[in-house]
Amino acid sequence: MTNINFKSIGKIKSSFTHKSGDKNKVIADIIIDKKYTLALKGIEDYSHIMILFWLDKITDTEIKYLTTYPRGQENLPKVGIFSTRNKTRPNPIGLTIVNLISRKKNILKVKGLDAFDGSFVLDIKPYDYKDIKNNIHVPNWWSNLSKNKK
Amino acid sequence: MTNINFKSIGKIKSSFTHKSGDKNKVIADIIIDKKYTLALKGIEDYSHIMILFWLDKITDTEIKYLTTYPRGQENLPKVGIFSTRNKTRPNPIGLTIVNLISRKKNILKVKGLDAFDGSFVLDIKPYDYKDIKNNIHVPNWWSNLSKNKK
Repeated sequence: MTNINFKSIGKIKSSFTHKSGDKNKVIADIIIDKKYTLALKGIEDYSHIMILFWLDKITDTEIKYLTTYPRGQENLPKVGIFSTRNKTRPNPIGLTIVNLISRKKNILKVKGLDAFDGSFVLDIKPYDYKDIKNNIHVPNWWSNLSKNKK
Repeated sequence: MTNINFKSIGKIKSSFTHKSGDKNKVIADIIIDKKYTLALKGIEDYSHIMILFWLDKITDTEIKYLTTYPRGQENLPKVGIFSTRNKTRPNPIGLTIVNLISRKKNILKVKGLDAFDGSFVLDIKPYDYKDIKNNIHVPNWWSNLSKNKK
């Protein structure tokens, strides 16, 4: 088995919880380690960025299941973990595209991040026009998921 | 320093090289470890998926720089690593949104993946309507980058 080692590049400060409701309204601070402040130069010219973070609260017991109900909704078909954005994945990496509100030195203020307070940041990537895909299709159940919980 | 350990969940088989030209035309196979085949159930209902992979060829020497020219183009302003999708990042994680052509058991055939042959896969996530952001903005130099090399 190939082991891959990464390091935290910062932490998330957020009031987000399971009960936060619409994650799109949540405002969070991403506090990048000061030694990487220069690596953020120019990021404020993007309106949207991708946050990759470590889902450190996920336990090995949760990860052992290979199929799941999308967002735990048992009225939907059970599908593979890789067919969902559920958190219990073999490598628990979270990925959320957020709206970048502002940068103040090493601190990014963002909107729409569904990461818990204290989560470790792995990477920040800019979101650009090439990330907007046209004519996509998704499973039939997806629209039901979206209606119940956005 | 917080160390974070992940494992490979599969490997990429591709003819992609630095000289491949338009990466959007490249067809690659993603061979997921057989023990995770069930975790792919239903993924074929998505037209687009996100591939997270480990840029294992990047050396520590390359990673130490915090600013860079976008895609090495010295006619553009030097910006922070996190303001680009360059490969030399503190945690060398690649992220590409690809078109899923087909799945055959544990093998995904995809179009548009800029990962080298033999790269290790970290995660597969479905791309859905919530990943399409409207009214985005990007730096002024971005359109020049796009014209020179897509």
